Amino acid sequence: MIVRKLKEIRQGDKNIKSDGWESARLLLKDDGMGFSFHVTTLYTGAELHMHYQNHLESVLILKGNGTIEDLGTGETHELRPGVMYALNDHDKHIVRVENEILCACVFNPPVTGREVHDETGAYPADTSEDREPALSE
Amino acid sequence: MIVRKLKEIRQGDKNIKSDGWESARLLLKDDGMGFSFHVTTLYTGAELHMHYQNHLESVLILKGNGTIEDLGTGETHELRPGVMYALNDHDKHIVRVENEILCACVFNPPVTGREVHDETGAYPADTSEDREPALSE
Repeated sequence: MIVRKLKEIRQGDKNIKSDGWESARLLLKDDGMGFSFHVTTLYTGAELHMHYQNHLESVLILKGNGTIEDLGTGETHELRPGVMYALNDHDKHIVRVENEILCACVFNPPVTGREVHDETGAYPADTSEDREPALSE
Repeated sequence: MIVRKLKEIRQGDKNIKSDGWESARLLLKDDGMGFSFHVTTLYTGAELHMHYQNHLESVLILKGNGTIEDLGTGETHELRPGVMYALNDHDKHIVRVENEILCACVFNPPVTGREVHDETGAYPADTSEDREPALSE
């Protein structure tokens, strides 16, 4: 059993800060769960253009509000506590933050913790040898 | 892109009520994410004996408090907002709820939504033919 505290993760090297957001990685690939699990803060006013070409992601909004624009369909959805979105088709999207958003995020395959968003707004594929999720069957 | 609202899930047939808990399934196996994602309420006073023999699970406490006892090690950990536990070794455990707990849960492989806890406190393995997570490689 792994037990971790968000407060401690935020003070360590698994708390990643970037342009418009920071993310506390509670579970990463090395934990062997087959997914990674992050608590992410999106700063007020941020406009984040993202396209995860190598990952599926789901996000549950816990605090704050904003919008997500689906660039595939042109639709814009409100984000507020209790709204979940899932990028099940590597959807290009823009998140616009009206009031600082706190959200719980799951990535499959799991993030290693060493990625940075590249110029397309993606995390690169994990090219290490043992990239299989723990429960691939 | 899938967008769902917890409030709506709670009013539909993806909100499962059982003895001591209820769980709103925001993402299930059929959504093709390779994991399932639930927001679960554990009622005050509940003592839940669990052993997921067929699944890995991670849980982030959002509200409330209680304890988790790891029956493998005998250790008891406090549960309160910001604490995450991950059952990475099919750990037998008991959750005791002091004040109603709200938590975000991820299961790998994904729950189909048709399971019930059996007499061992496990969900049975998914025996349907297409049980591979979407991103198994």
